[in-house]
Amino acid sequence: MIIVLRLGHRRERDKRLSTHVGLTARAFGADKIVYSGEKDSSLLSSVKRVAKRWGGSFQVCYEKGWRNFLQKKKNEGFKVIHLTMYGEDFGKTIKKLKGDLLLVVGGPKVPGDLYGTADFNVSVGNQPHSEVAALALVLDRVVDWQHKKFPDAELEVKPCQKGKLIVKR
Amino acid sequence: MIIVLRLGHRRERDKRLSTHVGLTARAFGADKIVYSGEKDSSLLSSVKRVAKRWGGSFQVCYEKGWRNFLQKKKNEGFKVIHLTMYGEDFGKTIKKLKGDLLLVVGGPKVPGDLYGTADFNVSVGNQPHSEVAALALVLDRVVDWQHKKFPDAELEVKPCQKGKLIVKR
Repeated sequence: MIIVLRLGHRRERDKRLSTHVGLTARAFGADKIVYSGEKDSSLLSSVKRVAKRWGGSFQVCYEKGWRNFLQKKKNEGFKVIHLTMYGEDFGKTIKKLKGDLLLVVGGPKVPGDLYGTADFNVSVGNQPHSEVAALALVLDRVVDWQHKKFPDAELEVKPCQKGKLIVKR
Repeated sequence: MIIVLRLGHRRERDKRLSTHVGLTARAFGADKIVYSGEKDSSLLSSVKRVAKRWGGSFQVCYEKGWRNFLQKKKNEGFKVIHLTMYGEDFGKTIKKLKGDLLLVVGGPKVPGDLYGTADFNVSVGNQPHSEVAALALVLDRVVDWQHKKFPDAELEVKPCQKGKLIVKR
């Protein structure tokens, strides 16, 4: 199982980015997104709505106390992977990322204790870019997302060379 | 040369996402980001500032008339690759993406004529996710970004297992 934990959401500033984190988690094969920071019902419902329309069993929830949640998952055997531009090169650790994973992506300011709690602090390059890009790249390396199925979708896209082909069910 | 063209920027709603598009373009080896849509000086200067501090020769600019710009680049021999969830699977086309590339990422509403103008409409999966994720994955496949150098940086991160190690020059 792969869970993505998005820390430090801010209702006003982060709505669209946090939505992209959630949708990226889902599209590239994570099972669940957990938001922390400011509670934002409209964020949760908008990601849930997309997940329902486009199929699959992706879960969306909010946890106020992310440290407790993280510890609980560690106790259950999850490895905690903190995605950060300051970490070790992900190429070196990617092969160790097996079994249940909790991928943690921060907001602008990540609490310092996370670096100690995480099993791995992993960087996707050491340049500043985006938690969305980092998450996509890491999931790309650990999930066979291109063969993932999204059953019971209301909408499905059929790939095409020009224009849009959407099937409604 | 690889240029990323970000269409339909909206000053209020898209500032952070458009910033992430620019930084992702830079970190994964594109040479230039061109923003279109609403002109946003603070977006341009913030991406330029990051590019200067972290080194390399990444360029940032704005083009009001994106159709003219796109046609000009086509005339110069660039292939135009439109990243869209409705396109062909990128695994099929990725090997054709050589030489000078113009990668186009949309905002929420992409003008329909772009599907016809583009040499390839390419999808990174056919699920809704993020232009940042799509851009990162495509650049990952066409650029050897992990060996890219960013000369003349004021700041440089040294990878480490715990915490942060930043070198100032």
